[in-house]
Amino acid sequence: MKASELAARLGGTLEGADVELVACAGLEEARHGDLSFCKDPRHSKLVETTKASAVLLSSGWNGPAPHSAIRVPDPDRACMAAAKLFAPPEPMRAPGVHPSAIVDPSAKIGEGVHIGAHTVVEKGAEIAADAVVEAQVFVGEGCRIGEKTHIYPQVTLREGTVVGKNCIIHCGVRLGGDGYGFTTNVESDGTVEIDKIPQLGIVEIGDGVEIGSNTTIDRARIGRTYIGPMTKIDNLVQIGHNVKIKGYSGLIAQSGIAGSTQIGQGCLIWAQAGISGHIKIADGVQVGPQAGVPQSLDGSVKYVIGAPAESMKEFGARLLLPKMVAKLKAEVKELKAARRPEEVGHV
Amino acid sequence: MKASELAARLGGTLEGADVELVACAGLEEARHGDLSFCKDPRHSKLVETTKASAVLLSSGWNGPAPHSAIRVPDPDRACMAAAKLFAPPEPMRAPGVHPSAIVDPSAKIGEGVHIGAHTVVEKGAEIAADAVVEAQVFVGEGCRIGEKTHIYPQVTLREGTVVGKNCIIHCGVRLGGDGYGFTTNVESDGTVEIDKIPQLGIVEIGDGVEIGSNTTIDRARIGRTYIGPMTKIDNLVQIGHNVKIKGYSGLIAQSGIAGSTQIGQGCLIWAQAGISGHIKIADGVQVGPQAGVPQSLDGSVKYVIGAPAESMKEFGARLLLPKMVAKLKAEVKELKAARRPEEVGHV
Amino acid sequence: MKASELAARLGGTLEGADVELVACAGLEEARHGDLSFCKDPRHSKLVETTKASAVLLSSGWNGPAPHSAIRVPDPDRACMAAAKLFAPPEPMRAPGVHPSAIVDPSAKIGEGVHIGAHTVVEKGAEIAADAVVEAQVFVGEGCRIGEKTHIYPQVTLREGTVVGKNCIIHCGVRLGGDGYGFTTNVESDGTVEIDKIPQLGIVEIGDGVEIGSNTTIDRARIGRTYIGPMTKIDNLVQIGHNVKIKGYSGLIAQSGIAGSTQIGQGCLIWAQAGISGHIKIADGVQVGPQAGVPQSLDGSVKYVIGAPAESMKEFGARLLLPKMVAKLKAEVKELKAARRPEEVGHV
Repeated sequence: MKASELAARLGGTLEGADVELVACAGLEEARHGDLSFCKDPRHSKLVETTKASAVLLSSGWNGPAPHSAIRVPDPDRACMAAAKLFAPPEPMRAPGVHPSAIVDPSAKIGEGVHIGAHTVVEKGAEIAADAVVEAQVFVGEGCRIGEKTHIYPQVTLREGTVVGKNCIIHCGVRLGGDGYGFTTNVESDGTVEIDKIPQLGIVEIGDGVEIGSNTTIDRARIGRTYIGPMTKIDNLVQIGHNVKIKGYSGLIAQSGIAGSTQIGQGCLIWAQAGISGHIKIADGVQVGPQAGVPQSLDGSVKYVIGAPAESMKEFGARLLLPKMVAKLKAEVKELKAARRPEEVGHV
Repeated sequence: MKASELAARLGGTLEGADVELVACAGLEEARHGDLSFCKDPRHSKLVETTKASAVLLSSGWNGPAPHSAIRVPDPDRACMAAAKLFAPPEPMRAPGVHPSAIVDPSAKIGEGVHIGAHTVVEKGAEIAADAVVEAQVFVGEGCRIGEKTHIYPQVTLREGTVVGKNCIIHCGVRLGGDGYGFTTNVESDGTVEIDKIPQLGIVEIGDGVEIGSNTTIDRARIGRTYIGPMTKIDNLVQIGHNVKIKGYSGLIAQSGIAGSTQIGQGCLIWAQAGISGHIKIADGVQVGPQAGVPQSLDGSVKYVIGAPAESMKEFGARLLLPKMVAKLKAEVKELKAARRPEEVGHV
Repeated sequence: MKASELAARLGGTLEGADVELVACAGLEEARHGDLSFCKDPRHSKLVETTKASAVLLSSGWNGPAPHSAIRVPDPDRACMAAAKLFAPPEPMRAPGVHPSAIVDPSAKIGEGVHIGAHTVVEKGAEIAADAVVEAQVFVGEGCRIGEKTHIYPQVTLREGTVVGKNCIIHCGVRLGGDGYGFTTNVESDGTVEIDKIPQLGIVEIGDGVEIGSNTTIDRARIGRTYIGPMTKIDNLVQIGHNVKIKGYSGLIAQSGIAGSTQIGQGCLIWAQAGISGHIKIADGVQVGPQAGVPQSLDGSVKYVIGAPAESMKEFGARLLLPKMVAKLKAEVKELKAARRPEEVGHV
């Protein structure tokens, strides 16, 4: 698209060359043909060095002028609008069942549902209207998928899994795998018996939940592992059996929640954090990256960090320990040096 | 099922309304139609507030009476029995090869084997009697799968992988991927050459092993990556090339074992722990959650925690440092204040 | 293969029994029929106890003599050569499209390309000459795969993903999933609105990149998530949207890079490390295992460790704190004891 056409579409003004633009990118990663954007004068140096063919600038920008600039009231917002113009249309997932899909005759498929190539839908599964189940997905016996939910390729839903409406389930997500549960007995002759505890429950996902690639959520031992509405889960997250997340919470990549733990509403669990089993995290609590939470958090502290997790104040004090100890060491040395000779002998 | 029928089946006594029950759940997560259970008087408040339609209570329970109660000798055990009654039957995996599966004619398929839809079984693979290989699985050339082993959908077994009998392999598990191995050479002209080290070995899984969803176990550089019998591995665990786990051990979610490390018998590696490469963990050692183990553990300490991992005593002392340092600081301040004026000048 | 034949092929000399050999393995894990190797006299005890049927020894070895030995100039190298002789040939991926694959007519498939069973290739995708796309892979709309790139089973490439030439993508890798991005608004009536930020960019993988099993790399919000040439990524790694890795870097298992972070050339990110979003890691920096990096690293420190990450010197000092504090405590006690009685009253 010509810069002039883009400027017109974005309601902006072109300054400089009317270059051809094919994509959007940040100032540093942009290449020839890219449109970039800058609204912060502190980044004006990047406007000079960028390889972008044109840059979106705010109306009042008075930093360096690139080869080609489009002035707009809000460069951030204009960039998103431009990105939408450049982005190819999303792949069309037209209603219908691909002929290579294996759908059990007893499955109930709603109006407008798309079922992709090589997908398997087992006995008694129900897929509600306008849901999209892409290629190579496995939908086990008796699963229920809500309206307008979008399931990307190569997801597996083990038997009995329930997914709400307007959910987005990314590639490689595993819902309803067996929870980790075993009993270990040492027999009188010393042999060890390890028996599997049956995992008889299900996974239930509320409305508006998004689950990132390769995340795993285990079925309950009994009852339900429950992910409340509007919860947003990133990639490679582990959620154990019988976990209950109230809703409107976020779980960032590679975090893990052990079995039977309850997470309140509006919580945010940062990347690589780990939360022990059988505890409760109160509404609105944030658990920092790589934190380890061994005990329930009642919400009196809103942000915890470290392992075992503590308040920012406590964590900060711990970080300062080397300096404090070095200072103490110097002071003790001074005190020892200040003793009169005859004192030293006292001890 | 009516509460009265359930009471009869469980050998218990119904007290209160003869409600309809459809599922089991914990007291807090239970909904209308659920059966819950309580044996601990400390949870008696939950018996009052639960939404469960009926609650299993011990014969001697004298806490609050729910709307409907079933008295049994052991509420825990009765709840598992009830859960089994409520649970739909496990999906039937009848013997036979689904017509959409692609099975190489040279593969040896035992008696009673189930091979699911869209599964691929390559040249020379052997699947022993009564094994279940569900839908969309990939079984590479020359793989061997033991009797009664159950492989869930969308597992991949790269060529040569050996899985014992009575194993359970959950969705998305990757067995036999190349180990991470490269040589880096800086040429005389400064260019860097990175070459792949061929990964020529295999993965071998012993009998009775269970492997959780999306776990990855790499093939050996030479020889075998070996997971000994009855080892139970949770979700999203990483096991590097040439790792050797003796058997009867547990690895909890998101833990990782780097290449060539040996894990003894009866070890327990807790969630998100990491173990360095080329070391040995003695029989029966437990590695705590998020611990980092840089060196071999000879078993003189049975439980390690922290990063780098240390004994609970050492870890506990480390946690107490801020308090200890604050106390020392106060004492040093006191000592300084106590000095007579002429002493201060000495230093 | 007979030990005599192997000795001849490796240019070595057989000493002892002419046993039958079927595989290679390390001294400790070797079984009957295995060839092992030893070059380090410190492991001579293992040569005595190994179950290997034969052992490769250096020409000058004068440690214990196994039942059967093959003397060679370089046991390490000879072992790799032997492993190649024992390893079954790699599965043949002959040019051609498996009849069960679903390839859109608009896709461009180069000369010599292999497309495996049940693979799906969508509209406008381009697969260059001699690429191998194994079974059950999903190649989304408009994806481009470079020459000789090898994609193992059950990988997903979401629409628009670009993979360079000579890449290796292992089972279960997810390229181009939506980045994690949401806006949260609290309405005047207290209700919370969570909206998805469109993820309009792509993932671009440079030449010679290898990506381990079940690793996830998210598409950019706008522009490109970029993995530079020759970068080697291990299993279960998470790379957020708009991350940029210059090239020739290594990311070990279960590490994670949050959104928009830039990783320089020749970096090494060790296992389970986490790097925050929107920061820069300078060329050649190493981030230790389980480290957490909250801020940019300018390269003045070449190796960081701990969480938050610091230099080895600082980390080492922190580890020594318990000892230092114990010593200080003793010294303070001594100082207090040394005070004359009348001093104590002063405070």
